[in-house]
Amino acid sequence: MANKRSETAAFQGDRGAFSQQAVVRLLGESAEVLPCQRFEEVFQNLQKKCVTAAVIPIENTLAGSVHENYDHLLNYDFQIVGETSVRIVHNLIVPPGVAFRDVRRVFSHPVALNQCLEFFVKNPQVEKVPFYDTAGSVKMIMEEGLKDAAGIASSIAAEIYGGKILKRSIEDDRQNYTRFFLLRPQGWKAKSPLAAPKGWKTSLVFTLRNTPGTLFRALSAFALRDINMAKIESRPLRGKPWEYLFYMDFMGHLDDERTRNALGHLRELADFLRVLGCYPRGD
Amino acid sequence: MANKRSETAAFQGDRGAFSQQAVVRLLGESAEVLPCQRFEEVFQNLQKKCVTAAVIPIENTLAGSVHENYDHLLNYDFQIVGETSVRIVHNLIVPPGVAFRDVRRVFSHPVALNQCLEFFVKNPQVEKVPFYDTAGSVKMIMEEGLKDAAGIASSIAAEIYGGKILKRSIEDDRQNYTRFFLLRPQGWKAKSPLAAPKGWKTSLVFTLRNTPGTLFRALSAFALRDINMAKIESRPLRGKPWEYLFYMDFMGHLDDERTRNALGHLRELADFLRVLGCYPRGD
Repeated sequence: MANKRSETAAFQGDRGAFSQQAVVRLLGESAEVLPCQRFEEVFQNLQKKCVTAAVIPIENTLAGSVHENYDHLLNYDFQIVGETSVRIVHNLIVPPGVAFRDVRRVFSHPVALNQCLEFFVKNPQVEKVPFYDTAGSVKMIMEEGLKDAAGIASSIAAEIYGGKILKRSIEDDRQNYTRFFLLRPQGWKAKSPLAAPKGWKTSLVFTLRNTPGTLFRALSAFALRDINMAKIESRPLRGKPWEYLFYMDFMGHLDDERTRNALGHLRELADFLRVLGCYPRGD
Repeated sequence: MANKRSETAAFQGDRGAFSQQAVVRLLGESAEVLPCQRFEEVFQNLQKKCVTAAVIPIENTLAGSVHENYDHLLNYDFQIVGETSVRIVHNLIVPPGVAFRDVRRVFSHPVALNQCLEFFVKNPQVEKVPFYDTAGSVKMIMEEGLKDAAGIASSIAAEIYGGKILKRSIEDDRQNYTRFFLLRPQGWKAKSPLAAPKGWKTSLVFTLRNTPGTLFRALSAFALRDINMAKIESRPLRGKPWEYLFYMDFMGHLDDERTRNALGHLRELADFLRVLGCYPRGD
């Protein structure tokens, strides 16, 4: 418990953001949080050791990868030590005493507003108002005591700011999940071995010589050893127009012999290769 | 010339946007343009036949892919018939009569502001002001007659709105290019065969069965036939969390025997496959 109590995790967004749900899943209810305005501040706070961990979204099943965070993973040198996914449930939240017939304006992050389009089609009397954050929209309507407005955010946000959930789960598509990474400084080691009931995942970033067929050969290092790739993402390589960095997640632990062999094989083909982390596979 | 004169191309942004430079390269100086506020409107205008063509940015060498346009390519059914890349040169533009010592605020699209950070470090007296569009920022400062403000935009924007270029090429990184696609309705055919001095490119989108090693096997259809892949991009597959759509560009014409064989091979592995276009390779 002493260990848990001394944890502080940085995340982007206001208190009550979906990232805070990921913090609870990854570090437990007792972890302290440091809400940040921008993703880069999250990384900077971990760099300056203002926090012991950082939690960042890396991909959403509807919106895709959070490319900015892929770039930060390369520019900072942390290790990924955990992952989790959070089902994104959007709730319509109002100050207590406000009824649905009073609501004329709905505030939330543009991505959240766009994920509740059916609600707005069915309720043409309400106006969508873009706001910088989901939880922040609830904070604002509570602080301002707005009587004609609602926010769209997580149920945690309603709890934290004392809002009332008028309608639960108004998102169009329930297959809406965000995957988060837990980041720690390099050199961090778990006090007791991590449990990995679903096995291990490893994440890499690499660049390849710009010759025909190199990506195919890079994937062969894994496929020919029956290592299952979970994801591959490309990002532009600075200074080399139309060349790419590749980020790859695959199933396996760094200590497995076939993982070691695959990485040795990949090193023969890669101009640059960095292991970003090896962590228990999440839900 | 009669043919050329009857062309109208939709693009996103105000007149003078970098997309308009791409229109000139792809369709010549005589093409009419229809500036649109959002990318989706560009696609809608081609759908409704309000224009004969559309020009969209698909990737930038610093910012990466324009993922929204990848999604639209799937949701609309057009063909890619050309590509070009435009070097992004950011210029500091003011109304005539304004001197550099007068400038206190600089308006532009947030991506453009972020690509000129050294300029802002060297000139701490000026404030960055995010605006919805690069060319639009010049249009606005000219219309409002601002005496303390500049915009960051293309030289075409300065010309169109009568602005004066105070400083040329203030971008941090000169390896800053954006690649654009020229889109036409399905069934469109060139009046005379297209010239392809640099060869041909073909673009596809496909999904794979979610079994180990399928992406490797999909790439093998090309690599084993010595077909050179130029780019692969993944996007989330709606309704199937943690599965992906793949967009691929490779060198070759659809009529080449080895391209036909590779596509036949890929069809054996793909749940879904659509050819997005076959077009002369750009600069």
